[in-house]
Amino acid sequence: MSETYTVADYLFDRVAEAGASEVFGVPGDFNLPFLDNVLAHPKLDWVGNNNELNAGYCADGYARLRGFAAMVTTFGVGELSAINATAGSYAEYAPVLHIVGAPARATQASGLKVHHTLGDGKFTHFYDMARPVTCAQAWLTPANAASEIDRVIRTILVERRPGYLLLSPDVARAPIYRPDTTLTADMDSVTSSAALTAFEQAATEFLAGTTATVLADLLVHRLGAQKTLTDFLATSKLPYATLAWGKTLVNESSPNFAGVYAGRASSERAREAVEDCERLITCGVEFTDNTTAGFSMKLDADRIIQIDASQATVGGRPFAPIHIKDAIAAVSRAADKAGVTAHQLQPVVKEQQTPIDEDSQLKQDDLWEIFSEWLPSDSIVVADQGTSFFGMADRNMPDGSMFIGQPLWGSIGYTLPAALGAGIADRNRRSVLLIGDGSAQLSVQEISVMLREKINPLLIIINNSGYTVERAIHGPNQEYNDIATYDWQKVPAALGGNDNNSLVLKASTPRELRETLATAEATRDKLVLLEIMMERDDIPRLLKTITEALAESSRK
Amino acid sequence: MSETYTVADYLFDRVAEAGASEVFGVPGDFNLPFLDNVLAHPKLDWVGNNNELNAGYCADGYARLRGFAAMVTTFGVGELSAINATAGSYAEYAPVLHIVGAPARATQASGLKVHHTLGDGKFTHFYDMARPVTCAQAWLTPANAASEIDRVIRTILVERRPGYLLLSPDVARAPIYRPDTTLTADMDSVTSSAALTAFEQAATEFLAGTTATVLADLLVHRLGAQKTLTDFLATSKLPYATLAWGKTLVNESSPNFAGVYAGRASSERAREAVEDCERLITCGVEFTDNTTAGFSMKLDADRIIQIDASQATVGGRPFAPIHIKDAIAAVSRAADKAGVTAHQLQPVVKEQQTPIDEDSQLKQDDLWEIFSEWLPSDSIVVADQGTSFFGMADRNMPDGSMFIGQPLWGSIGYTLPAALGAGIADRNRRSVLLIGDGSAQLSVQEISVMLREKINPLLIIINNSGYTVERAIHGPNQEYNDIATYDWQKVPAALGGNDNNSLVLKASTPRELRETLATAEATRDKLVLLEIMMERDDIPRLLKTITEALAESSRK
Repeated sequence: MSETYTVADYLFDRVAEAGASEVFGVPGDFNLPFLDNVLAHPKLDWVGNNNELNAGYCADGYARLRGFAAMVTTFGVGELSAINATAGSYAEYAPVLHIVGAPARATQASGLKVHHTLGDGKFTHFYDMARPVTCAQAWLTPANAASEIDRVIRTILVERRPGYLLLSPDVARAPIYRPDTTLTADMDSVTSSAALTAFEQAATEFLAGTTATVLADLLVHRLGAQKTLTDFLATSKLPYATLAWGKTLVNESSPNFAGVYAGRASSERAREAVEDCERLITCGVEFTDNTTAGFSMKLDADRIIQIDASQATVGGRPFAPIHIKDAIAAVSRAADKAGVTAHQLQPVVKEQQTPIDEDSQLKQDDLWEIFSEWLPSDSIVVADQGTSFFGMADRNMPDGSMFIGQPLWGSIGYTLPAALGAGIADRNRRSVLLIGDGSAQLSVQEISVMLREKINPLLIIINNSGYTVERAIHGPNQEYNDIATYDWQKVPAALGGNDNNSLVLKASTPRELRETLATAEATRDKLVLLEIMMERDDIPRLLKTITEALAESSRK
Repeated sequence: MSETYTVADYLFDRVAEAGASEVFGVPGDFNLPFLDNVLAHPKLDWVGNNNELNAGYCADGYARLRGFAAMVTTFGVGELSAINATAGSYAEYAPVLHIVGAPARATQASGLKVHHTLGDGKFTHFYDMARPVTCAQAWLTPANAASEIDRVIRTILVERRPGYLLLSPDVARAPIYRPDTTLTADMDSVTSSAALTAFEQAATEFLAGTTATVLADLLVHRLGAQKTLTDFLATSKLPYATLAWGKTLVNESSPNFAGVYAGRASSERAREAVEDCERLITCGVEFTDNTTAGFSMKLDADRIIQIDASQATVGGRPFAPIHIKDAIAAVSRAADKAGVTAHQLQPVVKEQQTPIDEDSQLKQDDLWEIFSEWLPSDSIVVADQGTSFFGMADRNMPDGSMFIGQPLWGSIGYTLPAALGAGIADRNRRSVLLIGDGSAQLSVQEISVMLREKINPLLIIINNSGYTVERAIHGPNQEYNDIATYDWQKVPAALGGNDNNSLVLKASTPRELRETLATAEATRDKLVLLEIMMERDDIPRLLKTITEALAESSRK
């Protein structure tokens, strides 16, 4: 670290304090000088990505595990390349700090045609473009650096959404005092005690003498209320379901788990538990078209307690402000006082399956069945928004495993770098990527960083000759759903793989799938790429229902 | 084509009329229905790219040759992935139409949490984000489609900058009448005849009895005035120079060519011709930091006739509006009437070079010397903004060849997809890509489309173990300038290459370089990837001067 304590030192001290031990990104001449501060920082490591969009995806995956991530790009070219990843982090509540290196203040004042600008002498365009997709922004100067860095990082931690800092090298090396205080960010403080008391009272009356089900989703995890929810479910013994976005939020092996609710695409057991119960308690639920088969849920506000980020409603009557964590704790007490009892779940119906022919062409529904039976409980499963997400969405996963998808933003190619970020965030678990050959082409380069960082993921490439999810929606035989042909068996070797750091496998039948998964499990010290050869138009059951709904909506 | 003539039919008829025969992009559920209209169009072919940023770069390269390109992406995820490419097209005057598929109007009106949105029910965010980097935008409806499509495409053709159209599938299939008129776009009509007469008179007096030099740049090409300039140079016999941005705008083999002017980084011959002449006539010149060694030009407005896009000045006195083409023609007449004579150029000084040791490690300066001697005259050279651009910037190129760089926007990775687009724009010429291993990693996937489209480019990968251009600016030995290690010899095979469609070569010495270039020239029916092994910190002469200036500016 430089002898003088500088703005850059302050910034990266706060980055480390917020929970990051790695900083992602791509170097550029406007950020190079303060990347020295990252390299010199005792608690931070630099992880260079192949390009900025990949860096943004990688930081998003990291943030979903760590609760915070930081990335650095350069002015204009770099930041705009990453902006789709930032928008995804915004939509899906991933707290990522994006630090952009800017031309020196004197250069900006000159109004000259500097590289990485539009040539019009204006330096505010890209800052303004970042506004809609970040929850806080600051243009740092030596005078505002301490307060603005703290404000932006606190807002990120409270809102669980990305933020943006613009930093010139001349500002980065300006001297500054070390912070006196720690960086606390406490959203719980939003709660009004009067609102909370009134809510608990109303919820108690509402639940008195009834049976109930709990429906939980992603925001519970993002807003740090996962333990409160787990306690509530354990104490109340109420049955529960999640949406696909909230997979692995709760224990999916419990008999109280009704399954994944997806509107009309739900299993009958999950549908009945959610739609036909006397009282439904929703926790952090966001209904999106992809998780509800086109908003096909049939729910009646009159019988619902709805707990959102900072508001709770009882039969439609709102109580605010109440932080989600306080509201779940309150509803737990209310359920106890009200003597609410468990909605009676229907028995689990094992579909009458034709026995799998072990040596025939592997089918989508068999793939996900065999895979989820095999899945080790320490896995971080990252599933791309094609057949992989929909194939896994309604499979129970082992307790302890984690599921990452992106059903709202739905950017194909997101998951490969996200699996890298997740693998770096927790090096004791294995990243398992589920991705189609079409999606994998968008961000394939990041396999090289997986190898360099030695995170040894399992990459499952579903080779079905193109954009199968798009074929299911429109144009099954149209040329635009074809893709360029890769030889996936040769991809790791081209990107830095060799016999010591990687293993490449292929499976076409159920038997081969079981064997290669066993080999992958026995090879935890290498990156394993498993290419699964599938039929082009074979799609998972759930996707069939959902794409019918999406195609219908696009015909409107 | 569908039986009813629709908005999509109208749009793609206009796209073909504007000069495109290919449409680039990536499919998504909001654009799939109108991609059918592209496939069915008799004059258009669909070229799917690996991702949207690559599609945008590819369209930019295509537009630089064709004068127009079109690309299609999907709402949010797709368009934002491409927005850095669009910003580059804006900065560097590449006329690209970006067509974005949007949710149906009924879905937008619903305000629901639809996929590919931020989940806030607002559908205007990304349209607004596109504004600063496009010269015209429209949100199409059946009622405004004809007039707005025409307005946006005309503006693109006049301003030579990208435009944006948002199109929902329901709007795309709405019936519409065929156009009655052709799509004419005539910027020449801006010229005021009174201004032109006054300018010609002032220029004649200003040039009377003097000697002069011409300095030309990129905008002459972009605004369609290349032939007018060539005629002026031929008639007047004045000596001329260009900036690096305007390379191959003029015949670089003529004795009247003074070389590339780059401020203090110029050869003495070029510097003297531009800075020490009695009268300087500048045509479409844009001074940027990268092309002037940090604005180090020494020019005196009192002795300059400056011709810009729609204004001309004589010794600082402005005349407007005058289109650049009219102004160049007027200054040609003025030069003739004034009896202006050629500034006397200094003789070409061949630097006293130590003879090349044919079997030693290849040096940067020798690489560019050998390469430019070899270069066939039908080549489209696309040089990435690292050692490649600066290595080639001050080499004379054969008449007929074309040079594409991106010195203002300077997005690393741009050139690989741009070389694809240029190769598709003119399949009779060969794209020759010059790129470093660091830059090539950002967009390497598009090699697969080069193979699929059979454009048979020559890809020269300068393997110097990382971001050498960044090392030259800051942190020569810092870890952030290292990159993940690819095995470039294996890359084409991983991306669809085989012995029939590709050839992979490697060179480390001058002799090997000469031999492999000869092999590449003899192998015009395949994609040839030539990996050149260089020393990490070896940089071309011009880059040395320019990075000194850039590093100085970042220290300000």
